[in-house]
Amino acid sequence: MTADVSGRTPRTLTDLETAPSFQRRHIGPDAAARAKMLAQVGYGSLDELTAAAVPDAIKSTEPLRLPAGRTEAEVLAELRALADRNQVLKSMIGTGYYGTFTPPVILRNVLENPAWYTAYTPYQPEISQGRLEALLNFQTVVADLTGLPTSGASLLDEGTAAAEAMALSRRVSRTPPPRGATGSSPGQGLFLVDADCLPQTIAVVRSRAEPQSIEVLVADLSQGLPDGLAERGLFGVLLQYPGTSGAVRDLAPVVDEAHQLGAVVSVAADLLALTLLTPPGELGADIAVGTTQRFGVPMGFGGPHAGYMAVRESFARNLPGRLVGVSVDSHGDRAYRLALQTREQHIRRERATSNICTAQVLLAVMAGMYAVYHGPEGLRTIARRTHRYAAVLAQGLRAGGVDVVHDAFFDTVTARVPGRAAEVVAAARAAGVNLRQTDTDLVGIACDETTTRSDLTTVWAAFGVTADVDALDATTPDALPEGLLRGDAVLTHPVFHQYRSETAMLRYLRRLADRDYALDRGMIPLGSCTMKLNATVEMEPVTWPEFGELHPFAPAEQAQGYLELIGDLEDRLAELTGYAKVSLQPNAGSQGELAGLLAVRAYHRANGEQQRTVCLIPSSAHGTNAASAVMAGMTVVVVKTSEDGDVDLADLRAKIDAHRDTLAVLMVTYPSTHGVFEEHITEVCEAVHAAGGQVYVDGANLNALVGLARPGAFGADVSHLNLHKTFCIPHGGGGPGVGPVAVREHLAPYLPNHPLQPAAGPETGVGPVSAAPWGSAGILPISWAYLRLMGGPGLRLATQVAVLSANYVAKRLAPYYPVLYTGPGGLVAHECIIDLRPLTKATGVTVDDVAKRLIDYGFHAPTMSFPVAGTLMIEPTESEDLAELDRFCAAMIAIRGEIDRVAAGEFTAAESPLRHAPHTAAALTDEWTRGYSRQEAVFPAGLPAADKYWPPVGRIDGAFGDRNLVCSCPPLDDYES
Amino acid sequence: MTADVSGRTPRTLTDLETAPSFQRRHIGPDAAARAKMLAQVGYGSLDELTAAAVPDAIKSTEPLRLPAGRTEAEVLAELRALADRNQVLKSMIGTGYYGTFTPPVILRNVLENPAWYTAYTPYQPEISQGRLEALLNFQTVVADLTGLPTSGASLLDEGTAAAEAMALSRRVSRTPPPRGATGSSPGQGLFLVDADCLPQTIAVVRSRAEPQSIEVLVADLSQGLPDGLAERGLFGVLLQYPGTSGAVRDLAPVVDEAHQLGAVVSVAADLLALTLLTPPGELGADIAVGTTQRFGVPMGFGGPHAGYMAVRESFARNLPGRLVGVSVDSHGDRAYRLALQTREQHIRRERATSNICTAQVLLAVMAGMYAVYHGPEGLRTIARRTHRYAAVLAQGLRAGGVDVVHDAFFDTVTARVPGRAAEVVAAARAAGVNLRQTDTDLVGIACDETTTRSDLTTVWAAFGVTADVDALDATTPDALPEGLLRGDAVLTHPVFHQYRSETAMLRYLRRLADRDYALDRGMIPLGSCTMKLNATVEMEPVTWPEFGELHPFAPAEQAQGYLELIGDLEDRLAELTGYAKVSLQPNAGSQGELAGLLAVRAYHRANGEQQRTVCLIPSSAHGTNAASAVMAGMTVVVVKTSEDGDVDLADLRAKIDAHRDTLAVLMVTYPSTHGVFEEHITEVCEAVHAAGGQVYVDGANLNALVGLARPGAFGADVSHLNLHKTFCIPHGGGGPGVGPVAVREHLAPYLPNHPLQPAAGPETGVGPVSAAPWGSAGILPISWAYLRLMGGPGLRLATQVAVLSANYVAKRLAPYYPVLYTGPGGLVAHECIIDLRPLTKATGVTVDDVAKRLIDYGFHAPTMSFPVAGTLMIEPTESEDLAELDRFCAAMIAIRGEIDRVAAGEFTAAESPLRHAPHTAAALTDEWTRGYSRQEAVFPAGLPAADKYWPPVGRIDGAFGDRNLVCSCPPLDDYES
Repeated sequence: MTADVSGRTPRTLTDLETAPSFQRRHIGPDAAARAKMLAQVGYGSLDELTAAAVPDAIKSTEPLRLPAGRTEAEVLAELRALADRNQVLKSMIGTGYYGTFTPPVILRNVLENPAWYTAYTPYQPEISQGRLEALLNFQTVVADLTGLPTSGASLLDEGTAAAEAMALSRRVSRTPPPRGATGSSPGQGLFLVDADCLPQTIAVVRSRAEPQSIEVLVADLSQGLPDGLAERGLFGVLLQYPGTSGAVRDLAPVVDEAHQLGAVVSVAADLLALTLLTPPGELGADIAVGTTQRFGVPMGFGGPHAGYMAVRESFARNLPGRLVGVSVDSHGDRAYRLALQTREQHIRRERATSNICTAQVLLAVMAGMYAVYHGPEGLRTIARRTHRYAAVLAQGLRAGGVDVVHDAFFDTVTARVPGRAAEVVAAARAAGVNLRQTDTDLVGIACDETTTRSDLTTVWAAFGVTADVDALDATTPDALPEGLLRGDAVLTHPVFHQYRSETAMLRYLRRLADRDYALDRGMIPLGSCTMKLNATVEMEPVTWPEFGELHPFAPAEQAQGYLELIGDLEDRLAELTGYAKVSLQPNAGSQGELAGLLAVRAYHRANGEQQRTVCLIPSSAHGTNAASAVMAGMTVVVVKTSEDGDVDLADLRAKIDAHRDTLAVLMVTYPSTHGVFEEHITEVCEAVHAAGGQVYVDGANLNALVGLARPGAFGADVSHLNLHKTFCIPHGGGGPGVGPVAVREHLAPYLPNHPLQPAAGPETGVGPVSAAPWGSAGILPISWAYLRLMGGPGLRLATQVAVLSANYVAKRLAPYYPVLYTGPGGLVAHECIIDLRPLTKATGVTVDDVAKRLIDYGFHAPTMSFPVAGTLMIEPTESEDLAELDRFCAAMIAIRGEIDRVAAGEFTAAESPLRHAPHTAAALTDEWTRGYSRQEAVFPAGLPAADKYWPPVGRIDGAFGDRNLVCSCPPLDDYES
Repeated sequence: MTADVSGRTPRTLTDLETAPSFQRRHIGPDAAARAKMLAQVGYGSLDELTAAAVPDAIKSTEPLRLPAGRTEAEVLAELRALADRNQVLKSMIGTGYYGTFTPPVILRNVLENPAWYTAYTPYQPEISQGRLEALLNFQTVVADLTGLPTSGASLLDEGTAAAEAMALSRRVSRTPPPRGATGSSPGQGLFLVDADCLPQTIAVVRSRAEPQSIEVLVADLSQGLPDGLAERGLFGVLLQYPGTSGAVRDLAPVVDEAHQLGAVVSVAADLLALTLLTPPGELGADIAVGTTQRFGVPMGFGGPHAGYMAVRESFARNLPGRLVGVSVDSHGDRAYRLALQTREQHIRRERATSNICTAQVLLAVMAGMYAVYHGPEGLRTIARRTHRYAAVLAQGLRAGGVDVVHDAFFDTVTARVPGRAAEVVAAARAAGVNLRQTDTDLVGIACDETTTRSDLTTVWAAFGVTADVDALDATTPDALPEGLLRGDAVLTHPVFHQYRSETAMLRYLRRLADRDYALDRGMIPLGSCTMKLNATVEMEPVTWPEFGELHPFAPAEQAQGYLELIGDLEDRLAELTGYAKVSLQPNAGSQGELAGLLAVRAYHRANGEQQRTVCLIPSSAHGTNAASAVMAGMTVVVVKTSEDGDVDLADLRAKIDAHRDTLAVLMVTYPSTHGVFEEHITEVCEAVHAAGGQVYVDGANLNALVGLARPGAFGADVSHLNLHKTFCIPHGGGGPGVGPVAVREHLAPYLPNHPLQPAAGPETGVGPVSAAPWGSAGILPISWAYLRLMGGPGLRLATQVAVLSANYVAKRLAPYYPVLYTGPGGLVAHECIIDLRPLTKATGVTVDDVAKRLIDYGFHAPTMSFPVAGTLMIEPTESEDLAELDRFCAAMIAIRGEIDRVAAGEFTAAESPLRHAPHTAAALTDEWTRGYSRQEAVFPAGLPAADKYWPPVGRIDGAFGDRNLVCSCPPLDDYES
């Protein structure tokens, strides 16, 4: 009657219970399709195929020791049980994380909407106009509120944003390093940090500074700068506004003093407070950083949230991370795209000054939309209410005889209760409210958007105070310094005024989503990016309050569900990769790289070999590798790639010999960035180890390995993984990412840790690389669920099908486009590079033309010109079914036919549909003078007209936008014209 | 700094806490916009406007006694608290409602997706192709599984579907009514119901039969038909398959017997069982009815779910409710639309044989998609597993000495434990499982998709039995009768085989959603339909398990949250409408009408006035009114409408005089279906009352009254309300609806009740009008939340703005299109009718042309030709902001310009863009021979090209489809060609 995957007719419950498992939902090609694909590739079974593709030396011989896969219903029930073990108290801990109310229309239509969360980074701007506009909104919010004109499109969190500010300050400061210091050798100068900065920010800054030989001095700057700074090479100052104690001070005098010493001043500022307070830009700051979490993004036990950085105009081109700008398309119409991409680490490699790659797009979109929905007057009302609660709270405490430390504050009140802090905090906790215990005497109480009158009463009671809210409200003055009240109009752009009703907001969100192409429309075959299914069941728990509303510094006993989930996930990832220990703290792949290299660095130093600072990197590596190495205080030495795409073994040995005593580590991606299982990986590892070096295997391509081979077992010492690739966290349109670092036993003592959460890492660790103890904890349920749903055999099958699909596409396209590299058996791994260069040479049709033309066929382009210029790298993943693979191959073959028409002289490349791609609907209504028909332009190869994805703009002129940099919502008169 | 709605600067917490209330999210025009609109309409304030519009005689003088409005966060917290008071046990109650696992991809992308839930009924098929395809899938599932070729697009629930089957049987049976009976007078014949039918179905059939003078005989038919049926005018038989006891019997012999007596045979069948069992069609049944709830639709404490009916070919044109069919568009391409609409009650009025209007589209889409996603083999696996659990369960009971009543069953086991049933049920409940206590001796245990091994163990333990699942599984044979095993292939259409991966399914759902126009794209200004905001915060609780997973017959102590919510909602609706008592049971407006008329009927009969059966209905009434009156056993007498659109008072008095002794009720809509506050409504009520009649005010237009006037206070005795209009339940693309009935004290004893739930209505009630005690309880949190969010003043403000918006549109359009009717002060109520007839006469441009042309401008058309042919009725609602109102007016004015071009002879109507509308993208690539440009065709009046909604098909030829009726997915070879 019905057959399970193995072909038997199920008769018993056991058969019937397991038959419809999640595997068949996650993996696109079913058994019949796989048989067809195997026939095309020339293998009899998946096992035969992967046996041929994966070198014997690295093959796993034992099955994964993971719990068996469970059904969606079972996994939801397990997640529900974990959620129930988290206890959501009202958080008044503050310290960088605040309660906030996500407007339901944003929650449902952004955070829970696959049109937003399954999108990729907007590197193809023509099909990313929706989220680019949303990011421009975000940038405008940050720029307006901070009073600094250029804001990036988000950073990873406030702590790393502050560390990036330090690095930027070092680059742009005119202060020379202290005498005697040169190059990257010790003594890059002094970075001064106010003691009233967030403790986690200080810790992240310290771990970033140390390998850079930057001295960090933490001091109380409330009375001005200490003496003797110039001699120590002061290049930068970091202030917090309001301070973590709650204090609001006029920073202008300190800023002036610092400027006189030639230092660059960064202010970590709270955006909600900035709706009422004089902005950092006006106080003279050069840089503002912070988080936008409280703009409607759930705390999520620490993340993900969008950090921000805004800078003065002269620093715009030094900004780390992504920057959205305005340009024009081929019709001269306004269009958005990422600006100044030459700043990015994938171009600048070891000359890059930041390794930031992933942003926090999904969260930045939410924060921007929160501002769009509330508008300036709404935000100010929230800020004023928050402040009033704090003011009334403080007044009540004072009236009850409690010492309130600061007279001027925004949302946070620090109370001094000598010796009683723990007792007060415990009493509040028992009554359902978490407070911050700063030390034995001080208690911090932070108000926020969610604070209620009864919270005040509860807090008062915990202090032993009784007070009346209404009475105090009538008599308590505001506690904001008169001189710092903000008077200017902010968020004056129409976008912050048009969408005040839910109906209008809903339509705006839909309109923007409709402009974009995400996985919910079709395949995104981006090589190296693993755009696989982000299953709904994996996403569901992310928006449950029990996961969303936990403060990262909530007591551990309130986070038992999270801690169990995190422990499980670390253990299971370790099992999958063959490592001893995993840290989930790094909240992006780049941070995982840095953490891994910091561990290597610490290991060598612990062995007395601090001279080991050379990092070997093959020329084909991700640019981030080199940038991270530099940030970890290493010197990059490039190893050649041989003609077949593998690491050039001879050159490697030569480079090892040349740097035998100083060799710290080799960073290599496996399978290689060429999408090939290199045969000699074990030899490579052995050679490095023999020279005293460590082997870092970049886990970007882990989707080709899971269940087949384990880096920790075949010779690597350390890897980072990308949970947003192999482990199903959605790309979110360019973040969030999660980049755990995995190490063998000898490196485990040097994993990241966290000053506020001992359980987050080893005491001997390298300090935090993210602001939160477990980074983006709020989205870890996604990967946990994926592993639980698939089980060991399911994960292995997924890998096998990913390899099969890549080889299927390679075989189908080979007659039309040469496949550049193959490995054992003429096979590729999980992706393949097709070479456009001969066709470009012959016809002038470029990789860009093909990529843009694919939009007309209803596809997102593969990865362009990485790792080899003039090529396309295609990674279909296991989640695309055969129908979609065939649709893609048919499009590529049809495009080859169009290139042939150029070759045949039917039209020139410049006149061809390839160069005019993508074609907009608007273009159809213009006079048509092309050498091809409208039909060919927009419905090529019989594309169904009714379901067509229409790009909202034509091809975008990136250079124009870089020459005319506009990085916030274009001004009003642009709209009027 | 910032100002609240009243213009004061908020300073205290009280100000700051209330300023950003939900009102401003729900109501589109803000204070500034309202001022502009008032100026256009010529009034100084909203109060002045509505004081002028609403007749003094009916105005409410006191504010609503409702709790004050709360914020979204507060209301979510209150709903969470209510949810926590519902206790979700594992349900094994069965009895028509089963546990099911909604695939998360369907939950999130259909039930939680505004693109699906905010759509309207597909009366404009060109912009409804997505849900029409989804409904065609549903129809195909039902037709295939029941073995009957024509299925409708869903009915309200299984109970009402059975009642509709009875009515259909009466219509089509050749059996004459028993001797002596004529017309609608007593004695329409006998409807025989098997005793093994669902108890709620039997009860609904009885309440429907009584006013129709149909005799219902319930008998055990397991041994064949009783004697003497022919004499009693047997016209129909209803069987249940499997029976509610679980028994699976071969129904063919009984069907044959019944056919020999000339009776039509209906089988209420379980679709999941039908994946394994010989279908009703093959057993000879003429009609199959049932529910599709267990195809992935949460139980929701009773609903909403999609009921179904499928019929033999010869009955296709008698099918009640909506039917989707295949036709062609203006390009000759396949297109879907509602077929055979002339069957519908809005056309046939009192000649209609069913009052069904709303369907259950959203739920039908879910059920159809569940089948699409699982496919036939997946459904059979679920069915087989469910059956195996039941078989193993039964065997364990038998082995433990418990008497199992039936040898052959599908999912439900009835155990006989003399005198111990209550004790067993209690023991199971204590262990977390609800069972069905059929009587003192019998316990019913239903397995379903969610059953687990541990459930079996729990049930066994409740019976005092210990057994081993594995051991029994190995030895227990299936309990399905060999002779009834189904062997044919079902669901062979490709749609049930293409979307097996989640990625493929996600894209299919998106593709279909993208074909449709819903409120998330723009305004749907449908007069009489009140397409207002369905706020996300109102929708959120609907998919919480605590509301979704409750069985309607779960013990009341497990449903305390629901019962409180229901009680609140009934009380608050009573307060709003001025009635004494509300019943939420009717799960559609039509059922509310019937319930209201049944109450009137019962009241007259209780007063000994059974001769009062005349129902007066103005000619402008909704057609449903007349259909409902007939179903309630009444005779419809039509009252004229005067030239100004009001009830013709003279004719009314004449009709009252003519029927003074037999007058039962006047049904009148207020404000009138002409969108006018009739001045004489109180006189009308008094005249009817004076003649001993009751006044029924149809609440369809209640959105113009809330907070301004209360029908129960100004003279009406009974109303139904439409929660899916005024109270924010989304239309779901054509259902679910909820149609509570509200009555004054003297009618309260005659409200609906329910045999299985005494708390659902008065003991003296008229029986159930829905299968579930509180109808579609699962969506009642929506309306509850709306009332809680808005509070009394907010609701009143919404009404005032709705009236303002309608008058604003009327005033703006009046220079271009005459407004047909106005009331006091030249004002309309909440909608306005514009008259196209003069333009049609002058130019040939029809109402249809304008409606379809609006699609090109990015709008859904207003209501066409109701209540007056050749007109458009526009209802903007309070939720549309001024920008959208202006965009609509601009489109209408531009269209008037196009009509003028026809008038000027620039092109004929037939050649005009109006007649060719809507224009598809595909049409742009054809050779262009039109007398207007491509630009004018698709981007008229400068419509932004990038965000254009493209209709997937051109204008549809409805008549073609009716002549060539195809109501399931077109066969394979259609796809091949």
